Parts: sequence; C-alpha cells; structure tokens
Amino acid sequence: MSIANPHYEALKRTYGRLHRLTHLESMASWDQAANMPPGGNQARADALTEMAGLLHRMRTDPMLQAQLSGAEAEQLDEAQRANLREMSREWRRSNALPEALVERRSQATSRCEHAWRSQRPANDWAGFLPNLQEVLAVAREEARLLAERSGLGLYDAMMDQYEPGMTSATAARVFGELRTWLPGLIRAVGERQARETVVPAVGPFPLPAQRALCERVMKLLDFDFSAGRLDVSTHPFSGGVPEDVRLTTRFYEDDFLPSLMGTVHETGHGRYEQNLPRDLLGQPVALARSMAIHESQSLAFEMQLGSHPGFARLLSPLVSEAFGAQPAFEPANLHKLLTRVKPSLIRVEADEVTYPAHVILRFEIERALIEGEAEAADIPAMWDERMRDLLGQDTRGNYKDGPMQDVHWPTGAFGYFPCYSLGAMYAAQWFAAMRREMPALDEQIAAGNLSPVFDWLKRNIWQQASRWTTDELALRASGETLNPAHFRAHLTQRYLS
Amino acid sequence: MSIANPHYEALKRTYGRLHRLTHLESMASWDQAANMPPGGNQARADALTEMAGLLHRMRTDPMLQAQLSGAEAEQLDEAQRANLREMSREWRRSNALPEALVERRSQATSRCEHAWRSQRPANDWAGFLPNLQEVLAVAREEARLLAERSGLGLYDAMMDQYEPGMTSATAARVFGELRTWLPGLIRAVGERQARETVVPAVGPFPLPAQRALCERVMKLLDFDFSAGRLDVSTHPFSGGVPEDVRLTTRFYEDDFLPSLMGTVHETGHGRYEQNLPRDLLGQPVALARSMAIHESQSLAFEMQLGSHPGFARLLSPLVSEAFGAQPAFEPANLHKLLTRVKPSLIRVEADEVTYPAHVILRFEIERALIEGEAEAADIPAMWDERMRDLLGQDTRGNYKDGPMQDVHWPTGAFGYFPCYSLGAMYAAQWFAAMRREMPALDEQIAAGNLSPVFDWLKRNIWQQASRWTTDELALRASGETLNPAHFRAHLTQRYLS
Repeated sequence: MSIANPHYEALKRTYGRLHRLTHLESMASWDQAANMPPGGNQARADALTEMAGLLHRMRTDPMLQAQLSGAEAEQLDEAQRANLREMSREWRRSNALPEALVERRSQATSRCEHAWRSQRPANDWAGFLPNLQEVLAVAREEARLLAERSGLGLYDAMMDQYEPGMTSATAARVFGELRTWLPGLIRAVGERQARETVVPAVGPFPLPAQRALCERVMKLLDFDFSAGRLDVSTHPFSGGVPEDVRLTTRFYEDDFLPSLMGTVHETGHGRYEQNLPRDLLGQPVALARSMAIHESQSLAFEMQLGSHPGFARLLSPLVSEAFGAQPAFEPANLHKLLTRVKPSLIRVEADEVTYPAHVILRFEIERALIEGEAEAADIPAMWDERMRDLLGQDTRGNYKDGPMQDVHWPTGAFGYFPCYSLGAMYAAQWFAAMRREMPALDEQIAAGNLSPVFDWLKRNIWQQASRWTTDELALRASGETLNPAHFRAHLTQRYLS
Repeated sequence: MSIANPHYEALKRTYGRLHRLTHLESMASWDQAANMPPGGNQARADALTEMAGLLHRMRTDPMLQAQLSGAEAEQLDEAQRANLREMSREWRRSNALPEALVERRSQATSRCEHAWRSQRPANDWAGFLPNLQEVLAVAREEARLLAERSGLGLYDAMMDQYEPGMTSATAARVFGELRTWLPGLIRAVGERQARETVVPAVGPFPLPAQRALCERVMKLLDFDFSAGRLDVSTHPFSGGVPEDVRLTTRFYEDDFLPSLMGTVHETGHGRYEQNLPRDLLGQPVALARSMAIHESQSLAFEMQLGSHPGFARLLSPLVSEAFGAQPAFEPANLHKLLTRVKPSLIRVEADEVTYPAHVILRFEIERALIEGEAEAADIPAMWDERMRDLLGQDTRGNYKDGPMQDVHWPTGAFGYFPCYSLGAMYAAQWFAAMRREMPALDEQIAAGNLSPVFDWLKRNIWQQASRWTTDELALRASGETLNPAHFRAHLTQRYLS
C-alpha cells in the first residue's frame, strides 16, 4: 500500500519533532523560574537562545511551504484538515520573523525576566528600564513584521499570537462597554459590602500548611499528580507540557488566600493541558485553542467555581484542617472572604469585580507602547494616571506593585493581557451554558459533586483543543460567540442580588 | 584582517552550539531523576531521544571531518591543540555509532532507568530483567562498533568512553594486585575494630535536619550555591552543567551518615565542575578529564578529607547543631563512626576499605556481559558467588540490595565501575603529593583550614580540565602516573597504624 497523504504525513512528523524538542525548552523555562540558582542564568539564556534558533530554523524550513500547499490537495478528514489549518497558522507566524530577531528576543527576554526577579522586590525601576527598553524594541520590530505579513494593525498582530481572530477594535469595543458599567458596579458592591460583617482570618499561616492545603485542593479539583507538580516561583504560572504539567504558586505567611486561589487558578490551566486529546498529541490541532480560552479555564476554576458559595462549603473543612478551626473559616464567612471587592494594586490578587480595570489599564498602555505612541519610560506616569481613574489608587514611586508586578512585559508578551478579561467573559458564558443544561448545577457544587462541571469542560473545551476556531468553539459549546452580557449578569447576580 | 585558523574556529562554533544544547539535555535528565512525576516519563524519553538524535547528527556532520583535518594544519597554540585533540576523540566516538543505535539506546535506557526506580524498592528482578536485556543488547552492539573503529577489545572500548587510555588488561592487573592484599587487610581491620568501643548515634534523624546539615557541610566545602543546588533522587548523582551544578542525595530517617557522606562525595564532583576553566567553557578541552579523575575528586572529598580524623572535629559541632548533642557526636567517636569497616551489600554506602571489593565484582560481571561470556539472566548467580567470595555476604533473592542497587546498568553505563576504584587510588595519590608539598596539611585540616586542599586541587586538577591526557595530568600533579601503592599506604596508615 502506498502512503496516503504523503505531504500531510511529512508535516505531521515535523510537528511531532517540534513537540518533542519544545518539551525540553518548556522544562528548562519552568526550571529557570522554579529552581535555577542565579549564577546559572547566562548559560540558561544561551541554551534557550540556541534552542529558539534551532526550532525557528525547523519551523521556517523552506520544504514546509511546499508540503503545506501539497497537503491542501490531499484527501484529509476533518481533524486532519483542522490540523493543517493550525500548521499553516503556525507557519505564517514563524516565517514572519527572521532567526536573528528570534534569537535577539530570546536573549533580551531571558535577561530582562531574570533581572526583574531581583529588581522587583528591590523596587528598582531604574535598573529594570534599560532591559525593558530592549524587550520593547524587539517587540515593536516583531509587531512590524507580523503586521506586514498579515495585513493586521501593529497591536492586533501581537494579540493575534495569543488570541487568533481577536482585534484591538473588538477588544476596545468590549472593554469600552465594560467601562460604562464597571465603575458603578464597583461602587455599588463596595457600599453593600461596607454594611456586612466579615470575620478576618487570623495568621500566621505556616508555609508547609499552606502548601499542603494547596495540594489538597488541587486533588479536590482532580489535578493528576501522576502527571504534574506544584512548586514555587516569583510569579505563579502553569508550565511544562500536557504530559507533565508544572504549576507554581507563591506563599505569604500572613495570608493564605493568595496562594490558595492562585493555585486554584493555575489548576484550571493545568487540567486543560492534562485533558487535551491524546490521539493527536504533539500536533498543532491538539494544542489549547487560544490564551483567552486558556484563561477561561483558569477563571472558570478560580472565579466561577472557586468563589462560588457552594465551593466555600467544600473548602471550609480543608482550611480548618490546615490551620486549625477559626470562626473566619465557617463556610458563609469564608465565602465572604473569597468575594471581598476592594480596589487594590496587584492584578493577580484582585477580586473578579475590580480585575477588569487592571486589564483595561494594561491594554491601553501596551497598545500605545507597541504602536509607538508611548515609550517604556512613560509607563509609570501612564500607570499612575489610570490607577487613579479606574481604581482610585496612588502608585507613585511604587514600581514593584505597579508596572513591575507582572512577568508579561519582561518576557515580551505584549498583547496577552486582554486574554484575561476575555477569559473571564468566556468563563461566565460557559457557566451560563452549564446552568441551562443542568438547572441543579449550583446545588451539586454545594454538595461536593464537581464532576458535572469538569465533564462539561472536558467535553466542550478540553477535548476540542484547536479543532475549531475560537468563535466556532464558543458556538458549539454555548450556542453563541463571545457574549460579555453573561459576565455582567454573573457579577450582578453574585455581588448585588 | 582575515580570520586566523578558519577550520579551528568553525569547529569551536559547532562545539559551542553542542554545549548549549546539551545544557537542555542535562537539565531534563536531572529533572527526570529529581522531580518528574511518573506519568511524564514517556514524553520525557521521547524528548530526550529526539535530542539525542539531533545532537548525534550534529556530531557526525560530514563537514566536521574536513574541518578536523584542516585544523591539524593550522597555527594553533597548545590549548587550541589540546582542544582539537579532544574534538577528534569526541568525533571518533560519535562516528562509530549510527543514529538509529543512539536513539535505540536513549529509548532503552530511559525506559529501563524509569522502571527501575519503582522496581528496585519492589525487589522486582523479573520485571527489571527484560528491560535490562534490551539495554545490554544495545550496549553489546555499541561495544562491537566502538571496538571495530578503535581496534580495542570489546570491554576496553566501553571503558575508553569514561577513562580514555585505560584498558581491561591494566584494570585487571591493578585489581588483581588489590585482590592479593585486600581480603587480609579487611580481616585485620575487622579484628582491630572489634576491640574498640564505639558509641552509636541515636536516631531518628528528621529529614529536614539532615537536609540542613548536608547544605551546611556543602558550604564548609565551599560549594557555590549561587551556581548549584542540592535535591533528592533515588540514586545520588552530580548532574547539571558546570555553570549550574545539580547534586542529589537520599535520606534515611534512622541514619544520617549515608546522606551526609553521599553529599560530601557529590560535592567533590560538583566543585570540580564549578571550577573548570571558564575561558574555553563549552569546548571539549574545558570538560572534566575523565571519570576516574572525576571520582578522584568525589573520593578526595568523601574519603581522604571526609573520613580524616581532623575533619571529624569540624563536623562534630555541625552534627550536634542538627540533631542535638550526643556522646556519639564527640570528634573521636564521630571519626570512628565514619571509618567503621564492615562488609555490606550496598556499594555507595560501603567504607573505603571494602569498597574496592564491590568494584571488582562489578568489573568481572560487566566485562563478561559485554564480551558475551554471560547473559543478563546470569547476573544474580554471578553476583551472589562474588559477594560470598569477596565479602562473605549472602545475597540470594535480594535483588534490590544486589544487582539492582545501582543506576549504571539500567542506564547502559557498562565500563564505568572501574573508575571508582581508580579514582580512590588517584585520590590517595593526590593527598600523598599534597603532604609532600605541605607537611603540615593534616594539622591544617584539623584546624579547619581546608583551603590548602582546595587550592591544590583547583590548581592541579580542576583548572587543568582536559588539557592533558590522564597520564600527563597525573604526572604534572603528583610526579608520577597512576601508582596504586599510595592507596594501600593510605588504608594501612588510617586503619592499622
């Protein structure tokens, strides 16, 4: 028998090889954040740069173009055709950038991210700025080349890497609409909560007990520890590979909620990766759909589920077991602690009501940076102005809790931030769809039966991977494309009803 | 100006790239042993296999042969010429093996080593055997090809990978001479020690305290924690890269000496790597000379220094600080505990007097395996026979403390074991040379001044890297090539004087 679809099969082999080599890259990046002593950084940056160049050469091998066109004419089934679509997208993106730029980006982001890890606690903006300027220079060049190839705008071309099909016009419209009702909602929730009595949790909360609690809650959320770990890093993230997911968190002795809810968030990312379909694993079609969809999983876990009143009932005994019983840990009070709305400085620790304000701020600043309307040195002033407008916070001189708080810009990930709030909107949309299908969902959560939630996500999102475009995926899962009305309804229902 | 030595410079670039890519391979291998959850193993094995194939293609690029001959005719200084010699050696070794065999070896050893980690505690020889048979089949094919290319014997060709220039005839002669006096020495030491009173240490020894003690002793030994770490694995090893050394140990709650002395051993390896010369780092000439020389560093630390009566004085307060004061921790008694001679089952926990017997046993078995005179299924019987003869131990049915105790065979490292005892001999030779240069050395060690030892090793071994052959290195450092008489004199002086 002759080989059917020789072009497609050749592409499949190449993408399989890329998957196996990026495994080593992913693990080295995780290790860099979770384990690596500082003296190892230059060698690590050099090794990752070498690998980035090598992968780039594989992704831009001239042979691929002929194979991609050849495969278009072959007899492919629907999954193969979707895989070919994703391969072509990958190919267009990689071929827009010359190897020298890819290596320069790897060097610049490794250096900036590594230095940031000690500059951030030292509030050292002056030390951070030159590294960030280089990262921004590379990102602008990247945007220019991506835009040239795709016909998209500069910032749109950057966003397209994380959320294919999303434009800054759409993002601006969605966030613009959000701006019309969010400040009012924050005020209304603030007034309502000011009248409530909440018992604060009394620390300290020893780190080993926090760690054990986080792992216990990951088990409650069905994280598969035979194919993943929890470790510690400066900035929590979900890394590794689908077969071996590496989550990180960070601990504060005076408050257990950041590590706990950060872990619940990363567990959402982790379960998506652990449940991607295995039959085409390593192929582009078997990767997570997009970053907004990825964040819709982390926020489905952290916000929809983690801050659900029923979930507080499940957490309550585990928290008491970790730190000893306290009045603060009673389910109703714990739920209040988990749903406090309070304008604050740190995005990753923000409640779900004020969170979108953090994203709007970053979206506006990074769009201006990429489009050349602002420079890296302008960031602190722009930051402070928006924090004042949106959340009434003064951030002057406080860089570490201001523009140095996130890993995204040091690593050159401009265009990523909108995905968080788009993800929050999708997460609300998924839960609205679940409730239409399963009217008793909230009672089941409160009874500790989380499998209807996980089964729905597995069937509709995780196992679908990149088989469909984001719009098609949303339509199949929930009967409609992105509809921010569900997010507004969710916040109103949870915080004002 | 035109480029001087274009062939040499091209080779240098290639070996630099190899160094940067093997960084990722080293870290992934360390992670596999120290962190990886079991479910990640297939993906890791696939990734390491892909990388092994890729590196093999780079190492066997036909261009290298022309560059190596071209460089021979270029104007090179002594260091460059030594680098070229090491490149040629590397090239000959790599070109002896086809890519398919390299990939098969990577798959077979990853599978065997991973399964061994759970089969060993389960004493599951039957489960282990088929994996080991495949590893042995690959190793025999490797030996055949290496021998064909080099004109060496089958086992010699395997040893040559770890200890260039060493032959099984030499090893057989050295170990044969050892056999003539070692059993008598073991008996004499046993009789002498039977008359001594030793206070046993009283456990349990909590693991966090053991870990802290190990790290404290690593600091005493000048390990650079800004460029390395200590972690836990089933089988202790020194991994990572010279810029970021990853040591591992293992803990037993009822005895702190195995983790402590294992850590001292690995610290010797680690300091060698951390102190390799930086000016040509990544080039073959800047790598550690050989595995016998590497083991001469770990055993210089563990046996020459770690079991020195003066070193017990330095350890004593640290051990008391870790576990609380006990009569057992008094310096003289601690030194007795550190120098107990007792035939036992486990090589890595053997004292320095009985240790060579473990190596002789493995040397005889693995030489027979590689030369086709024995099969993997014969190992338990051969093992038991030699353990009886050499150390009077019965190992029937106890595979986990018998042939399954070491990681070497599961990972295909046949030909490595002789390096341990050759290393012990070199270590004794280095300390004899130090004492000739510095007659007050032993008093300095007892006074806590270890820098004469470290300075000597740094100057004579670490900074010399692969600049000289092993024989030249030994001659320059100590005035003579390998001379086992120093090892015998050391044991007699320490245990019978």
